[in-house]
Amino acid sequence: MYKTGKDLRSDIRCGSFVEPTSGHASGYVQANLVVLPQDWAWDFLLFAQRNPKPCPVLEVGDIGSPFTSKLADNADIRTDIPKYRIYKNGELTAEVTDLQNCWQPDFVYFLIGCSFSFELALMKASLEIRNITERVNVPMYITNISCQEAGRFKSSPMVVSMRPFIAKDAICAVEITSRFPHVHGSPVHLGDPGFIGIKDINKPDYGDAVSIKPQEIPVFWACGVTPQLAALVSKPPLMITHAPGYMFVSDIKEEELK
Amino acid sequence: MYKTGKDLRSDIRCGSFVEPTSGHASGYVQANLVVLPQDWAWDFLLFAQRNPKPCPVLEVGDIGSPFTSKLADNADIRTDIPKYRIYKNGELTAEVTDLQNCWQPDFVYFLIGCSFSFELALMKASLEIRNITERVNVPMYITNISCQEAGRFKSSPMVVSMRPFIAKDAICAVEITSRFPHVHGSPVHLGDPGFIGIKDINKPDYGDAVSIKPQEIPVFWACGVTPQLAALVSKPPLMITHAPGYMFVSDIKEEELK
Repeated sequence: MYKTGKDLRSDIRCGSFVEPTSGHASGYVQANLVVLPQDWAWDFLLFAQRNPKPCPVLEVGDIGSPFTSKLADNADIRTDIPKYRIYKNGELTAEVTDLQNCWQPDFVYFLIGCSFSFELALMKASLEIRNITERVNVPMYITNISCQEAGRFKSSPMVVSMRPFIAKDAICAVEITSRFPHVHGSPVHLGDPGFIGIKDINKPDYGDAVSIKPQEIPVFWACGVTPQLAALVSKPPLMITHAPGYMFVSDIKEEELK
Repeated sequence: MYKTGKDLRSDIRCGSFVEPTSGHASGYVQANLVVLPQDWAWDFLLFAQRNPKPCPVLEVGDIGSPFTSKLADNADIRTDIPKYRIYKNGELTAEVTDLQNCWQPDFVYFLIGCSFSFELALMKASLEIRNITERVNVPMYITNISCQEAGRFKSSPMVVSMRPFIAKDAICAVEITSRFPHVHGSPVHLGDPGFIGIKDINKPDYGDAVSIKPQEIPVFWACGVTPQLAALVSKPPLMITHAPGYMFVSDIKEEELK
């Protein structure tokens, strides 16, 4: 077990840790990665500004710089994430564990909030997170909620994650997550999945199905997979992301996230 | 008195209203304006992302478009603000009431949250806003708090506004404004003005001094004048803002701001 984000990143950097980061360096904020050439960076930052619930931007690099300053002191985006995905014209072309050979002087990275952070806050309030209890990935769905377009980033569907709760815990989950706007904030929907275009709650588009007990209500949060789907739809010539589950682990505690 | 932002903008557009907007269309969000050529837009949006307390971005236009969609249905940034300031290389060169003759196809506008919105929320909680009681502009100060630089936007000082309260009202003001991250959020400082580099609380750098009664604590919020100061320091070749007090008035109620 790694106690801090720094310890974990150190082993990731030298290649001795190539696993999903969930459950490691507990309490430290983890983040989604998007890397785009400068030519597409404005469109993406504007897309994030217009769609803050699915795309809460935590840190943006200077043009060409792979180094962080806010989320971690001098972490290197090229080496400090266990696994990356490279997309060309919207198609996944490679998975790599290092970006040193393909980093370009016009690259801009974006680190985007992820729901791991609010799950911890919910658990501290004694709420049960079903996907954690059942040891599976959280179920995620493509909805009929349209993101706002921004430049060449087309209007693509919002992706949501779902966690089931009884009504009183659902209310508590709204209260708690509304305090975390940097990690998707309050839910975008609760109740009837059909209302947001989800045909079968037992067949998520990403992640794994979880059981929903009698009297439980599915509660839906905007999800960080949304910008990846937007990019696939909008087909930038080159885009790099983390591999799902292989996140950037920061030096910031959840409580410090402002 | 104008009941809605739309009514007020209609008279501004035809040139029959050329006054400060404070107190008009009460309850509708008002916003600061920054217009920059596309070449500088990335730097500014990144500056705002890195300095969200002084620069809470509410809406950004598409490149070349003067029209709004989120804050108002099809308002025209070129005509719907009563007075504008044009800066060239960091120098104020003109005040105009219309941008139709100088709008460029590479212009990008930014509408930025303004503290008028949270003042109303404080008054609803029966807090006295001294600058409103004394019918003067809120006092604003240049501090020793540095904004984070972004591209060609240099690290410039944060500007703050100040409102004095007794301790229990100061606490209440923190609670209330923390719920309004889109209009500067919670204060950045309270108490000793010297701690943030303010030498004389009775000599604000912008606006007017207000009286501070015995037992009152000065409470300081990040202020929307900050990006203007940043631009003056960083000297973009061309920048347009609203004239102080002559704001963009939206169709959105304070409570609807998300």
